Amino acid sequence: MKIAILTIGDELLNGDLADTNTASIARALLSHSLPVREAATIGDYEGDIIVTLQRLANAHDAIIVTGGLGPTEDDRTAKAAARAFDRSLSLNDKALMQIRARFQAHQREMHPRNEKQALLPGRSTIIANQNGTAPGFHLQSDQAELYFLPGVPSEMLAMLDDYVLPSLLERFPDPPLQCQRVITVFGLSEPDVETRINLNGLPAGVELAFNVETAMVHVKLRSKGEHAQQLVDRAELAVRKTLNEHIVGIDGGTLAASTAHLLTNAGTTLALAESCTGGLIAKLLTDQPGSSSFLERSVVTYANSAKMSCLNVDQKILDQYGAVSSECAEAMAKGVHAAAHTSIGLAVTGIAGPDGGTVGKPVGTVYLAMISPWGERIERFNFSGSRDQVRLRTAYTALDWLRRLAISRLSGEEQDG
Amino acid sequence: MKIAILTIGDELLNGDLADTNTASIARALLSHSLPVREAATIGDYEGDIIVTLQRLANAHDAIIVTGGLGPTEDDRTAKAAARAFDRSLSLNDKALMQIRARFQAHQREMHPRNEKQALLPGRSTIIANQNGTAPGFHLQSDQAELYFLPGVPSEMLAMLDDYVLPSLLERFPDPPLQCQRVITVFGLSEPDVETRINLNGLPAGVELAFNVETAMVHVKLRSKGEHAQQLVDRAELAVRKTLNEHIVGIDGGTLAASTAHLLTNAGTTLALAESCTGGLIAKLLTDQPGSSSFLERSVVTYANSAKMSCLNVDQKILDQYGAVSSECAEAMAKGVHAAAHTSIGLAVTGIAGPDGGTVGKPVGTVYLAMISPWGERIERFNFSGSRDQVRLRTAYTALDWLRRLAISRLSGEEQDG
Repeated sequence: MKIAILTIGDELLNGDLADTNTASIARALLSHSLPVREAATIGDYEGDIIVTLQRLANAHDAIIVTGGLGPTEDDRTAKAAARAFDRSLSLNDKALMQIRARFQAHQREMHPRNEKQALLPGRSTIIANQNGTAPGFHLQSDQAELYFLPGVPSEMLAMLDDYVLPSLLERFPDPPLQCQRVITVFGLSEPDVETRINLNGLPAGVELAFNVETAMVHVKLRSKGEHAQQLVDRAELAVRKTLNEHIVGIDGGTLAASTAHLLTNAGTTLALAESCTGGLIAKLLTDQPGSSSFLERSVVTYANSAKMSCLNVDQKILDQYGAVSSECAEAMAKGVHAAAHTSIGLAVTGIAGPDGGTVGKPVGTVYLAMISPWGERIERFNFSGSRDQVRLRTAYTALDWLRRLAISRLSGEEQDG
Repeated sequence: MKIAILTIGDELLNGDLADTNTASIARALLSHSLPVREAATIGDYEGDIIVTLQRLANAHDAIIVTGGLGPTEDDRTAKAAARAFDRSLSLNDKALMQIRARFQAHQREMHPRNEKQALLPGRSTIIANQNGTAPGFHLQSDQAELYFLPGVPSEMLAMLDDYVLPSLLERFPDPPLQCQRVITVFGLSEPDVETRINLNGLPAGVELAFNVETAMVHVKLRSKGEHAQQLVDRAELAVRKTLNEHIVGIDGGTLAASTAHLLTNAGTTLALAESCTGGLIAKLLTDQPGSSSFLERSVVTYANSAKMSCLNVDQKILDQYGAVSSECAEAMAKGVHAAAHTSIGLAVTGIAGPDGGTVGKPVGTVYLAMISPWGERIERFNFSGSRDQVRLRTAYTALDWLRRLAISRLSGEEQDG
C-alpha cells in the first residue's frame, strides 16, 4: 500500500513555518506498520492544490492532507478538493452543528466567518474535531482514500488517532509486516558508530541507516517480513552490546527523558547552577513529568552578583580567575550543593557567544563541575557552532554526566545487594 | 520562474526528524524575491529519487535538493541523480581533495567511507562545503538547474548562501518583484485579528494571510509588482495602528527577542522565580545574545524547600494556600525581587500537568506575579493544552507582561522628557 502526505499552506513555502505535521503523521502511521512513500507541500493556490491532489490520488492508495481548512479567505483546501474530484461544494449541516456546538460549549460567540468551515465537498464524511472549529472530511476518489485534516498539530493528531488510523487499518487490514527501531547515541561520531556496529555485525535481513542532529546520532534498524520484529530485536541487542552506555534513548526516547528516569530510580536529588545555558538544563529536565521528584532547584546566575549571593561564590575567585573558569564552576557547584542539601550539585559556566570570546577563552569555552558524595568532576570543553548549538551541547553534556552518575549508582547498588 | 525544493531521507518519512530545511531554504530565497512553488520529500530509494528528480526538473526551472550525500550506504542521492539525467558516476578529484583537506585541517584520520562522498555525476560542478565533509554539486539538465546539498542544516545553509543564491540570481536576474511582511500577534484569536484588520482596511493590491502557532497569530501581508514594497509598507502601518501593542514581532522577530530588546532599552533589570515553567522563561530570554545586561538571575524553585530557602517564602503560605496560589506567587516574586535588588521581580507557579490537577485547581491553573517600583500585578490563568503548551503559554504571558511594562516605561520616559 502506498500512502502520501500533502501539507498545504503558503507559510510552509515562504519560510514562516517549518512543517512538523509530516513527521508526526509518519510516526503515527509507522507505529501501525503503515509506511509513508512520499510527502508534498504546496501553497494556498487552488490550481496547485487541484493538480497535486489528482497526481497523488493517481499514484497512491491513501492521501492524508493537512491545512487550508481555517475560517479565513486564504484557506482553500475544501473548495479545491471539490473541484479536483468533481464534487459540489455545499453547506454540510452536520459540520455546521459541530462548529456551533463547539462555540456554545466554550460560551463564545460564533464568528460568521466560521460558517465557511462547514462548506464541504459532496459525498464526503465529516471527521469530527474535538479540539478546534475546523471539521475534517474523508473523501473517496476512484483510486484513493483522501483524508483532509486541519493544519493545527494538536487538532490534526487527535483526528488522525480517532478517525484516520482506524479507517486506514480497516481499509488495509494486513499491512506488510515491518519493524523499525531507532537508537539514539551521544558522544560518538556517525562514521564511528557505523564502524563499531559493522565490526560486530547485524543479523541478515536488518537494514542500517543513520541520521545526525546536534551532538546526537540516530541509528535505525529496519526489517521486513514475517520475522521483522524478532530480527530487529536481535539487532538491537547487538547494537546495545556494541555501544552500551553511549545509548541514550530508544524509539524517540531522549537524553533528557532517560536522565530524568535514571535520576528518579537512583533516588538521587539534584540542584543546578546554570550560567551560559541560562535555564536550558532545567527546562530540558522539567519537560519531563515527575521531574519534581529529583530536581530541588536550578539557579540561573547570569550576573556575578547572583553568583555571589545565590551560590556563595567568593569575589576573589571571580576577580582572580573570572566567571568562566574551572575555579568558578567548582565554587558554583559547591555553593548550590551546600545550599540545596541535595545529593548532586552541578554547575556550568561558559561563553555561548556570539560575543564575549577571548584568545585564551574563545566562544564555546565551557566548564562543567559536578559535586556529589561519590566524587567531584570538573572539565573544560571547547564546543563548536552557533550560540544555540553551544548551549545545547553544554546542556546535553551536563545531562550525560548526570545520566552516567545515576547508572553507576544503580549498578553499584545492584552489586552491593 | 518556478523553484522546487526536494528533501531526501527515510528519516523524514518515518517521523524521526521534522524537515526544517524546506522552511530555511524558502526563507532565504524569498528574501531575494525568489518564490518556492512546491516542496517534496521522499525516502532513500533510488527509484523514487530518480522519478521525483525527473518530474520536478520537467515542471520547474530550478530544484534545490538536500540530503543523501553522506558517507554511509543509505546515502544514494548522487547515484540517483547520475541515473536520472544519464550521467556517469565517477570519482571527482577536486571533491576528493576537498574532503581530504578538511580531515587534515581538523587533524583527523579520513575514514575510507568518506571517499564515497567524492563520487559525483559527470558534467557537474562541485559546490564546496566549508563546514562538513560532503561536497555538494550543481547539475544542469535540459530543463532545469539542479543544486544538490547535504542535509545537515548548518552546512546546507552556508552552501546555499555562498553558491546557490548567487547562481540563481545570475541565471534569473530579474525575479518578479514581490514583497512579504509577517507580523506576529499575541493575545488575540485569528478571526479577531482578521476582523480588526478588515474593519480598518488595507491598501488595494495587498493580500492578507494567516497562520497560527501556540498562542501566536502570524499575519502576512503580500504584494507583487513594481510598488510591492511601498504597498506592503503602507499595509504594515495600517496593521500597526489596528493591533498596536498586540504586535510582538515583525518578519520573524519573536516575543522573547522583542522583550529582551525592550528590557535592555528601558534600563530595567530582572529577577525570575520559576516553578511550573522550570527554566523556560530564562531559557527563552537567554536565547537572545546580550540578555546578561538585564537578567540578574532566575531561580527555578521546583521543591517547596527551594521556595523557602531561595525565595524566603513563608512555610505558613505553603501550608495555608499551597504552592499554586496567588499568595505563593506574590511571595515568590517579592522574595526574588528583594534578594536580587533588581527593578523587576517576576514569579510563576502552576500545574503544567499531566498530573497534579484538582477540582479547584485543574491542570493549566497558573498564577503570575510581578513586582516593581511601578506597581504590583497578580493574576490567575487557566491555560489549555498539553504540558508543553501550558508551559509555553505561561512563559509567553510572562514575557508579554515584561514587554508591556518596558513599553510603558519607555513611553513614560518620553512623556517625562
